[in-house]
Amino acid sequence: MREVAVIGAGMIPFGKYPEKTLADIAWPAVKHAIEDSGLKKGEIEAAYCGTALGGMMAGQRILKKLGITGLPIVNIENACSSSSTAFREAFIAVGAGVYDAALVIGTEKLTKFGGGTLPLEKEDWEVAHGLVMPALYAMRARRYMHEYGLTEDQLAKVSVKARMHGALNPDAQFRDPVTVEQVKNARPVADPLTLFHCCPSGDGAAAVVICSGEKARQHTTAPVKILGSEINSGKYLTGYRDMTSPEITVRGAAQLYEESGVGPEDVDLAEVHDAFAIAELLYYEALGFCEKGEAAKLLEDGETSIGGRIPVNPSGGLLAKGHPIGATGVAQIVEVVRQLRGQCGGRQVEGARIGLTHCTGGGVSGFDHGVCSIHLFGR
Amino acid sequence: MREVAVIGAGMIPFGKYPEKTLADIAWPAVKHAIEDSGLKKGEIEAAYCGTALGGMMAGQRILKKLGITGLPIVNIENACSSSSTAFREAFIAVGAGVYDAALVIGTEKLTKFGGGTLPLEKEDWEVAHGLVMPALYAMRARRYMHEYGLTEDQLAKVSVKARMHGALNPDAQFRDPVTVEQVKNARPVADPLTLFHCCPSGDGAAAVVICSGEKARQHTTAPVKILGSEINSGKYLTGYRDMTSPEITVRGAAQLYEESGVGPEDVDLAEVHDAFAIAELLYYEALGFCEKGEAAKLLEDGETSIGGRIPVNPSGGLLAKGHPIGATGVAQIVEVVRQLRGQCGGRQVEGARIGLTHCTGGGVSGFDHGVCSIHLFGR
Repeated sequence: MREVAVIGAGMIPFGKYPEKTLADIAWPAVKHAIEDSGLKKGEIEAAYCGTALGGMMAGQRILKKLGITGLPIVNIENACSSSSTAFREAFIAVGAGVYDAALVIGTEKLTKFGGGTLPLEKEDWEVAHGLVMPALYAMRARRYMHEYGLTEDQLAKVSVKARMHGALNPDAQFRDPVTVEQVKNARPVADPLTLFHCCPSGDGAAAVVICSGEKARQHTTAPVKILGSEINSGKYLTGYRDMTSPEITVRGAAQLYEESGVGPEDVDLAEVHDAFAIAELLYYEALGFCEKGEAAKLLEDGETSIGGRIPVNPSGGLLAKGHPIGATGVAQIVEVVRQLRGQCGGRQVEGARIGLTHCTGGGVSGFDHGVCSIHLFGR
Repeated sequence: MREVAVIGAGMIPFGKYPEKTLADIAWPAVKHAIEDSGLKKGEIEAAYCGTALGGMMAGQRILKKLGITGLPIVNIENACSSSSTAFREAFIAVGAGVYDAALVIGTEKLTKFGGGTLPLEKEDWEVAHGLVMPALYAMRARRYMHEYGLTEDQLAKVSVKARMHGALNPDAQFRDPVTVEQVKNARPVADPLTLFHCCPSGDGAAAVVICSGEKARQHTTAPVKILGSEINSGKYLTGYRDMTSPEITVRGAAQLYEESGVGPEDVDLAEVHDAFAIAELLYYEALGFCEKGEAAKLLEDGETSIGGRIPVNPSGGLLAKGHPIGATGVAQIVEVVRQLRGQCGGRQVEGARIGLTHCTGGGVSGFDHGVCSIHLFGR
């Protein structure tokens, strides 16, 4: 596998666009990414489109809007990890020399479902009995509180940080800061989670252009190299016995760090999959940013805020930037690319040289329909 | 890219299984393919699942039934080419050395839609105005009749051949031979197409195991090598001006033949995408098996029947074997693998050394949501 780099990144502000089609939502992000790359449309040799619920031929419908056709177009679904999986497939194909440059799109239009918890597979008997995502994360939060003494104030501070970062991101769905009291007093969703502990539903799109390292150096003096890529599947959590340990993230991170030679101590910023506030704390530990049980301290010490030792979700994360499922994986990459380039203005992580994206999801039945993808980037 | 081979193949008889879930339909095909490969479950390093309408996390749901988890699982959608696209992605990843062995699944459960023409994207304005697939192919048939003098009897003979082959295939959905008169007198669907000119709706699953050439030789003396892989996108047909020329197939075949060094004259058998009887004739020409306008003669001379110069769809094709959309691409590969191994009993193409699979599909809006995938195999 040869060196591969990201040379173009674009996205639209996440939000609610009920009047637009999926293709209408996504094409501006693609156009932005291609323009940012400096490549001509004809130099894009393949496209990978990640969407969980976007319907048939999503990539083809989007690219038609830009007059891009003829090339291989692959549509990929992997729940919340749809576009991070698409990114990995493109990375493999460019790394193998099959293509010199490829486009990766992530997009979703959730407003078509009218809001609320998404339609999940009824084959999942736990879902059929009410164990939808907010309920699952509420149980994990209660367990973590029991095991490690997390307080409701500490849990609320995850959302406060997310909104503080989101307020600095023009592409975030929520840009109003909130207080601990506001988070705690928001409408209850699944005890102890309130509305502000849960990521919003919405629409969005993000896109990146990747190419061989050699081609990247022809177009930019600041390519963002892909240092590692890891995808796995398995248990969404370890099971009822230990709901606080996201097994696939622990395993994926260990493999990625070993293969890349980069350790958690080398990571300057991370975009992690904070679909619910408790998740971010679990992932601090699973990704090795702190020891088990130390996540709340890391947060309260400000280490994961912009300006801290390891800023997490400077974009605002899923809680503030939004979580249009298939768009999230690539949107995380867009943020890391912009951070490593120093393009993030008020939310810039100073001197960032290595960034990590972590995207995980899946169904809950038997807790083993999970998928986890982690990527490392460096400049 | 190193050499890659198919070492395991399995499928279930295509048909209607309304009482089963997608996972229940697919797992036996996967089990069969893995057993056929001689690999242990733990040696499968990644799985790619192609399905157009199977819902979220289809691969994960299927593999859970077999206790296969932990590995990367990628779900891929590309309309009729969903699982042939999945096959290509697996081929690239194994060829690049990312994995030594990978599983490719194709599956679909169409009975959940209750039959009839499938739900297509309403963004396709031509679909919204009635240009569904049978109507599109009826127009192409009429045009071909006008241009090249094809008769209704000749068109019917495509279906007669398909059913003749399908009668020899225990995995075919339709195993009763039909006559020219029966085809012509069947219920009209879209003039000149009758019911027997159209592939059936149904459920199905197929799976193959691929691995590096080196690993293949450790497990079998008869690996089936992948000689070439080509996917593109573009116009489903050239447009209203020339409806008889499937542009993406013409272009894909030309590229594949050039890259692989194999020509149409070298191909001993082919599985092509005969969703409607007229399509098979168009693809004879597009794939270079005969000159433009000569397809009916090739058929009537028996050259594309088993025993002829270039048997096409010895499995019965989509018309007789069935067309559970996402299952079709891999099912075509299963047939070619079995033919090249000499495992096809009464429908065996004697001495077959090189086989081709051709899978194409997509939406119709502006005729440019098409996808075409072609693969070449040799022993």
